[in-house]
Amino acid sequence: MNTGKELPVRIAFDVRTTADFVYLPHIYMLHMKDNRLFSKDTVDKELKANGLKDLSNASIAQILSVAAGLEKSTGIPFIRMDQGVPGIPPVQIGTEAEKRALDSGAAGTYPPLSGIPELKEAASKFIKAFMNIEVSPSSCIPGTGSAMISFAAFTAALQRDPEKDTILFIDPGFPVQKSQLDILGAKWKNFDIYNYRGGKLEQKMEEIMNEGNIAAIIYSTPNNPAWFCLDENEVRTIGKLAEKYDAIAIEDIAYFGMDSRTCYGKPFSDPYPPTAARYTGNFIIMLSASKIFSYAGQRIGIACISDRLFRKTYPALAERYKTAGSFGQTIAESIIYAISAGCSMSAQHGVAAILDAACEGKFDFVEYTRDYAKRAERMKKIFTDNGFHIVYDMDGGKPIGDGFFFTAGYGPMSGGELVKELIYYGISSISISTAGSTQEGIRACVSKMTDSMFPLFEERIAAFRKDHPLI
Amino acid sequence: MNTGKELPVRIAFDVRTTADFVYLPHIYMLHMKDNRLFSKDTVDKELKANGLKDLSNASIAQILSVAAGLEKSTGIPFIRMDQGVPGIPPVQIGTEAEKRALDSGAAGTYPPLSGIPELKEAASKFIKAFMNIEVSPSSCIPGTGSAMISFAAFTAALQRDPEKDTILFIDPGFPVQKSQLDILGAKWKNFDIYNYRGGKLEQKMEEIMNEGNIAAIIYSTPNNPAWFCLDENEVRTIGKLAEKYDAIAIEDIAYFGMDSRTCYGKPFSDPYPPTAARYTGNFIIMLSASKIFSYAGQRIGIACISDRLFRKTYPALAERYKTAGSFGQTIAESIIYAISAGCSMSAQHGVAAILDAACEGKFDFVEYTRDYAKRAERMKKIFTDNGFHIVYDMDGGKPIGDGFFFTAGYGPMSGGELVKELIYYGISSISISTAGSTQEGIRACVSKMTDSMFPLFEERIAAFRKDHPLI
Repeated sequence: MNTGKELPVRIAFDVRTTADFVYLPHIYMLHMKDNRLFSKDTVDKELKANGLKDLSNASIAQILSVAAGLEKSTGIPFIRMDQGVPGIPPVQIGTEAEKRALDSGAAGTYPPLSGIPELKEAASKFIKAFMNIEVSPSSCIPGTGSAMISFAAFTAALQRDPEKDTILFIDPGFPVQKSQLDILGAKWKNFDIYNYRGGKLEQKMEEIMNEGNIAAIIYSTPNNPAWFCLDENEVRTIGKLAEKYDAIAIEDIAYFGMDSRTCYGKPFSDPYPPTAARYTGNFIIMLSASKIFSYAGQRIGIACISDRLFRKTYPALAERYKTAGSFGQTIAESIIYAISAGCSMSAQHGVAAILDAACEGKFDFVEYTRDYAKRAERMKKIFTDNGFHIVYDMDGGKPIGDGFFFTAGYGPMSGGELVKELIYYGISSISISTAGSTQEGIRACVSKMTDSMFPLFEERIAAFRKDHPLI
Repeated sequence: MNTGKELPVRIAFDVRTTADFVYLPHIYMLHMKDNRLFSKDTVDKELKANGLKDLSNASIAQILSVAAGLEKSTGIPFIRMDQGVPGIPPVQIGTEAEKRALDSGAAGTYPPLSGIPELKEAASKFIKAFMNIEVSPSSCIPGTGSAMISFAAFTAALQRDPEKDTILFIDPGFPVQKSQLDILGAKWKNFDIYNYRGGKLEQKMEEIMNEGNIAAIIYSTPNNPAWFCLDENEVRTIGKLAEKYDAIAIEDIAYFGMDSRTCYGKPFSDPYPPTAARYTGNFIIMLSASKIFSYAGQRIGIACISDRLFRKTYPALAERYKTAGSFGQTIAESIIYAISAGCSMSAQHGVAAILDAACEGKFDFVEYTRDYAKRAERMKKIFTDNGFHIVYDMDGGKPIGDGFFFTAGYGPMSGGELVKELIYYGISSISISTAGSTQEGIRACVSKMTDSMFPLFEERIAAFRKDHPLI
């Protein structure tokens, strides 16, 4: 019998959902429905209630809604691998600091234009302590989550020079970042890094960037959805090309330190994770509190902008915003301030306290979320024991680590097909094609898994396997 | 001797700052410098430190910065009338509810796509209780302050129909709202309502709107900066024309209920304030917690969108965002969610509790901020006793009320000149020309005035008057 690993993972055509028996050139697979948890009727009813015909290309929000609807209508709980939400309580140092801030009247004062000094200082110190990168407090700007930071960064990057009108996504990535460009009506390019890891990255990026129209490059490490981490060689390439083509490297570190293979949680000491910030003065590090501190509800992220880029002035920004046109001020005052008047005062105090505690070695933020890696390891084993394969499985020659997400594929099934089929077995996920991947598979988020759910999960995956034998 | 009231308030040319003696056709005024609090040197030094040549057209942020700098370098406190910030503590019902939400783990959960049910229900009830307008909970969408709401509203309004590419500002208004359009590169028109109150409004708006390109009309009532309130006749005109030309009336009620002349604080009972929402199904009411609940720090506002508009679908929105294209979902999911992932969970719980308490008659939010009106009354008297006049002084035939802001002019001085001259006397303000006014004068915010500051204020205004005798 084939294991997923031996199967061709790129299938150029879709496995049709209506077929019970699928013939592919090299492989065929039986679809049987005996062990389904939900009947076709039940699922169809729920799709209809959500105005959907099909789940193959459904957004995270739509999958969420269908899964929640089925849970409600049937009373059967789902294994929710769909949304990337914290599954560990928020860091209490933060919530206690927020409560003190609320008691001292912080709710009554507009946030300072570019953030409270305590948070700016703490962010600067954190980037030094855990990345060994120097960014002045004045260049650390809080916003309403990394969502606000990337929107502001894209906007300023695209508006600073009329020649540079395109954002480059090193995919797979977070789809909402592309949606942000729809608001601006801006252009983007992307490529799936799957076939361009390591030494192959430079030529691929050169191909795209030598047109001279790339305003910024955005990528995440650890990666959402695929959980690989860029290595020193890869971030050097990004930094070098950002420098060569005056593009801004926007490094999304939403899952900072959450790669299980290395411990990056000791302040001011080796090892430090790879970062393009070591190789270019054109960087913005997007530090988010949502996952690493389980702080998603309070909506706070911080743009740590290279001092050189922060101070750089652009005539196009000066003209548009009637300012001196510095990049950093544009982000802070002409964009973040203009569309939100800054981010929650209590949240700023809360996160400042967490960052300070981490820098002082009083709070090990890496250890805090380590349980995700344990959940991932167990889930991945259940998947691979049942014929699934990990899609993005390698990282510079060694297996990827465990953490918040992983990707999984099954035989010749497309990602969309797999998402849809798994719904019948009470498991919700998203297709990695929605994240710009050219591979076929799903993203699984481990955050909602609890010990008691593992037997259920195993049972459902086994039922799925029985109904979809790989021959 | 002339009082300000009898002076022509529109002066077509600037009073030059270098002249110590200014001759105008009908009036002249001596500039003497004997009673200044700060010397020219001291102020010039501070301007230079802020990279400014002149204060006449300075933004709020720049005025703030100069005033703060002078306070710091001289140790002499300013009378700060510049920024519109709460000067009353945040409503404790809110901060206590936030603390409970933090204790129950709200920080760890992403906000629901269009807000927590408690807040949506409460906002819907509040709009019914205090405006007698029906908006479903599902059409009430929270965002990071009214800043986020207006940005999202402008964006969706401008993108729904290629023909409608311009926002109309009924000025004077909040300058940052125009800056938001710089981010989008969108067009706007404005007119100063000063000469178009009451029956004259319709013809003026018709003139502008009959081109058919107005996507939305934005205005505030009570007005920032001029504190007039639109009357029933005026909001009817706005509603009627919004309907006629399919433009969206964006009603900014940041200062809701803060007009001293009428008490709008009793739930579910007359009187209800005038609102265009009574005359059109094309409305968005921008409910902000920043001023009425002194909640500026937590960044929360709510878009109360007419149900008809919320549900209306637009092909251009469907195409751009790959959705069904409904106006409300575009605001909630394609814009607010995409650029911020929603607003702070604890703040949503906090404001829900305040709105509920107001609707239940347990918290009189109008009474809560009534002190602003008392401060305004005293300040206005000191101004007018010393030769100043109130610029926007009438409201449909009767004097304007007292509240958070008022406008003041002095003889033939331009607004910019007056801002700059008052700085020498330790008083900071902003020119109403920066708010789109064609009149000459300053906006004074009363929020920072305390009892102990009145003698100081009076002394400084008297010193100013001595140095600037109106002859």
